[in-house]
Amino acid sequence: MERGLLIVVSGASGTGKGTVCKKILDDMPQVAYSISATTRTPRPGEVDGKEYYFLSRDEFTAWIDGGKFLEFAEVYGNFYGTPLNKIEERLNRGEDILLEIDVQGALNVKRKCPDGVYIFLLPPSLHELKRRIEGRGTETPESLRRRLANAVAEIQIGREYTYVVVNDSVERAAAQIEAIIAAEKCRVERNADKFSLEEVF
Amino acid sequence: MERGLLIVVSGASGTGKGTVCKKILDDMPQVAYSISATTRTPRPGEVDGKEYYFLSRDEFTAWIDGGKFLEFAEVYGNFYGTPLNKIEERLNRGEDILLEIDVQGALNVKRKCPDGVYIFLLPPSLHELKRRIEGRGTETPESLRRRLANAVAEIQIGREYTYVVVNDSVERAAAQIEAIIAAEKCRVERNADKFSLEEVF
Repeated sequence: MERGLLIVVSGASGTGKGTVCKKILDDMPQVAYSISATTRTPRPGEVDGKEYYFLSRDEFTAWIDGGKFLEFAEVYGNFYGTPLNKIEERLNRGEDILLEIDVQGALNVKRKCPDGVYIFLLPPSLHELKRRIEGRGTETPESLRRRLANAVAEIQIGREYTYVVVNDSVERAAAQIEAIIAAEKCRVERNADKFSLEEVF
Repeated sequence: MERGLLIVVSGASGTGKGTVCKKILDDMPQVAYSISATTRTPRPGEVDGKEYYFLSRDEFTAWIDGGKFLEFAEVYGNFYGTPLNKIEERLNRGEDILLEIDVQGALNVKRKCPDGVYIFLLPPSLHELKRRIEGRGTETPESLRRRLANAVAEIQIGREYTYVVVNDSVERAAAQIEAIIAAEKCRVERNADKFSLEEVF
């Protein structure tokens, strides 16, 4: 059984990670999404157990104490975490798992799971990023200013990833990530069985 | 200017490299094919300067002496070589260049050009490989036996490549290689300019 791919999509806040990941999941039904947990307030339309597990601070702390997270981090005063949810067993069963994580959390996962595929999503421009964050209508001027300053710093961290994709169009960015997934499945180290003579002949 | 990709497709003799490469070139007009030189006899329909530069032994030796090859190797008593054809300048101009090379030659190129993309094409089975080589109608029983024994040895060398693609269908193999090309263009080390603040903002 070929081990599944751990696909990690990250990028500065407001880069459009969620929309691009949704498109990938629509296009590739064989890829499973791993739902993150957060203490932040749900945005309009967000459903508990779908976009996120929305937890109170106390619940989040209980999950930490219970060893339920692969990683967790505090971002803009809220906690975000990646639940383990038997990720290792699922990968070993051949499932491909997509994680959408903030920049800091993704690097924590990279240290623990170096055989994952780490993709950094860039906004087409800071102007566009500002427009997208404002468009959410969930930011105060102060939190907007802070988010933009942070985005500049976060983007530099993208150099530590393996792949970089510019989100100038959701379709194009998703197509590039889908190509990355297809290519990673062809890497020799993931296909040792294909060189055993029993398999080939 | 982003440097072009050097894409090297290799695989055991009779794996169908030529057909798969032709499909890729049809699908991706931005990829240029680098024509190899050989001293072997043209197969029916092959045209000098299209599939290969067909050279006499003396001409081939003169090209070697003139420093015209990136690599060359003897395979089944014939010489095959990859002409330099200003490959470095073309890559630096941003051109993507596809090379179709035998197993031995490709590893020679890998040592000289480690930033290339090395793809190993596998036959779906030895039975199918035998059928393909016989189908050419250009082999004697002795040369067929020798080719098959060599294929077994050559396939093991595939472990030294970066990617492996099974040629169970030309369309599927070409699509996988096209995904590999798209993914390689997203690698962070090929996109350093995207992290400079002038470019992003």
